[in-house]
Amino acid sequence: MNIQQLFEQIKKKQSVLCVGLDTDLDKIPNHLLESEDPIFEFNKAIIEATHSYTVAYKPNTAFYEAYGIKGWQSLQKTIDYLNTHYPNIFTIADAKRGDIGNTSSRYAKAFFEDLGFDSVTTAPYMGKDSMEPFLAFDGKFTIMLALTSNPGAFDFQTQKIGKAELYKKVLETSTTWENSNRLMYVVGATKAEYLADIRKIVPDSFLLVPGVGAQGGSVEEVFKYGANSKAGLLINSSRGVIYASNSLDFAEAAASEAKKLQEQMAPYIAAL
Amino acid sequence: MNIQQLFEQIKKKQSVLCVGLDTDLDKIPNHLLESEDPIFEFNKAIIEATHSYTVAYKPNTAFYEAYGIKGWQSLQKTIDYLNTHYPNIFTIADAKRGDIGNTSSRYAKAFFEDLGFDSVTTAPYMGKDSMEPFLAFDGKFTIMLALTSNPGAFDFQTQKIGKAELYKKVLETSTTWENSNRLMYVVGATKAEYLADIRKIVPDSFLLVPGVGAQGGSVEEVFKYGANSKAGLLINSSRGVIYASNSLDFAEAAASEAKKLQEQMAPYIAAL
Repeated sequence: MNIQQLFEQIKKKQSVLCVGLDTDLDKIPNHLLESEDPIFEFNKAIIEATHSYTVAYKPNTAFYEAYGIKGWQSLQKTIDYLNTHYPNIFTIADAKRGDIGNTSSRYAKAFFEDLGFDSVTTAPYMGKDSMEPFLAFDGKFTIMLALTSNPGAFDFQTQKIGKAELYKKVLETSTTWENSNRLMYVVGATKAEYLADIRKIVPDSFLLVPGVGAQGGSVEEVFKYGANSKAGLLINSSRGVIYASNSLDFAEAAASEAKKLQEQMAPYIAAL
Repeated sequence: MNIQQLFEQIKKKQSVLCVGLDTDLDKIPNHLLESEDPIFEFNKAIIEATHSYTVAYKPNTAFYEAYGIKGWQSLQKTIDYLNTHYPNIFTIADAKRGDIGNTSSRYAKAFFEDLGFDSVTTAPYMGKDSMEPFLAFDGKFTIMLALTSNPGAFDFQTQKIGKAELYKKVLETSTTWENSNRLMYVVGATKAEYLADIRKIVPDSFLLVPGVGAQGGSVEEVFKYGANSKAGLLINSSRGVIYASNSLDFAEAAASEAKKLQEQMAPYIAAL
């Protein structure tokens, strides 16, 4: 997928919603637990209920690894389902990987080629040669942590290196890397006012914005400070959508929450 | 496993060698490719050949994820084999994970409980609440990236935050976290002269030191600057040991390389 195709989806659906598939056996409806693969059955139902309002899906790999081999099978089935039925929807493996060069290539291959995701999230601590192996994949995107939505973001990310904070140094440095046009960045919605500064450094890049809803960020603020002419945003909601209900009506409840978010987004997209 | 038990192994074997099981189907001997699980067969042979010289094994998860579900099966069999046959050997899942709190708990559970590793490597970019979920596991260790051995380490890790470099800030901050006594740190051997400063910040912690051999670090330098009274070191070699030969004699060749490294280490351990 390329940026133009992603933007087409955004305009068509009037949405920048990304639904986080953080699927947890302790939280999904009981009646699904009897099926052969409850995680996949849950994901499939959520996807079917929300795809009209959604331009991206983001399974967090931790939730799948936690169930070992069975979990990886569920992840594989989920991405296969998306690529078969909704190939125009952008897919994100939220894996936060990063390692020395030849090892990062392995992760990139696993997520981009073997599983077939459009993108993967990465952690920048090891620098250029840990990220460029991901960027080498044509038609794929690397979504690097910049400024996250958790309290620990203030431990290092907002500490000053010279005159600018670490997350700005990370953003600035990354623009010099080979194939940096394949980068997107994670920027937490709980720090929406930081988005204006971030836009000065990476005016054209897409930002993956978690933390709307459960973590307190607002759609309005994110658009106000973070949008560019192609929206440039993917706003993620995980728990707020997928666990809107844990009864028989869970899929309808998820659809309703996704629709609410899409309707909040629509006016800002119409105004681009 | 606790630190005292690890130190007992170190004294008994006169070794701080960690063997990195970065097992790659393109590099292992051809004759193994006909077996049902070539990765596990290779690992088992390497373990059998090197365990007398080795106090830790470290599979890098990227090499297993690259083979999808089959790769995870090989990883599971490898850790099961180690825990069954060599329970006194320290095991490291080199995964470089890190995420927001409840998600990090998932990774911790996957590696510590389900797979049964003694430790996992983590990346510190997201700060305290991304690391403490790992530290909550009693009898387990979290090995956090501090100063890595790759060129990209200079992009951010050695940049100054106030008066000290980022990696020192990471080390200092981490000592204030809950259960920080369960932390170890990754410090690359290619930067051995930095170890003296690091020891001032974390005098008692074990350091996992990659980059000896293939990446150019020396055992002598690492001990000179990095050892403490309980050795406080795990020196990793991956390719130099496991790919010493790719013929029928691969296990003997690995044993020979492991023995060489152990013999380089022995005098420094005897002198502790």
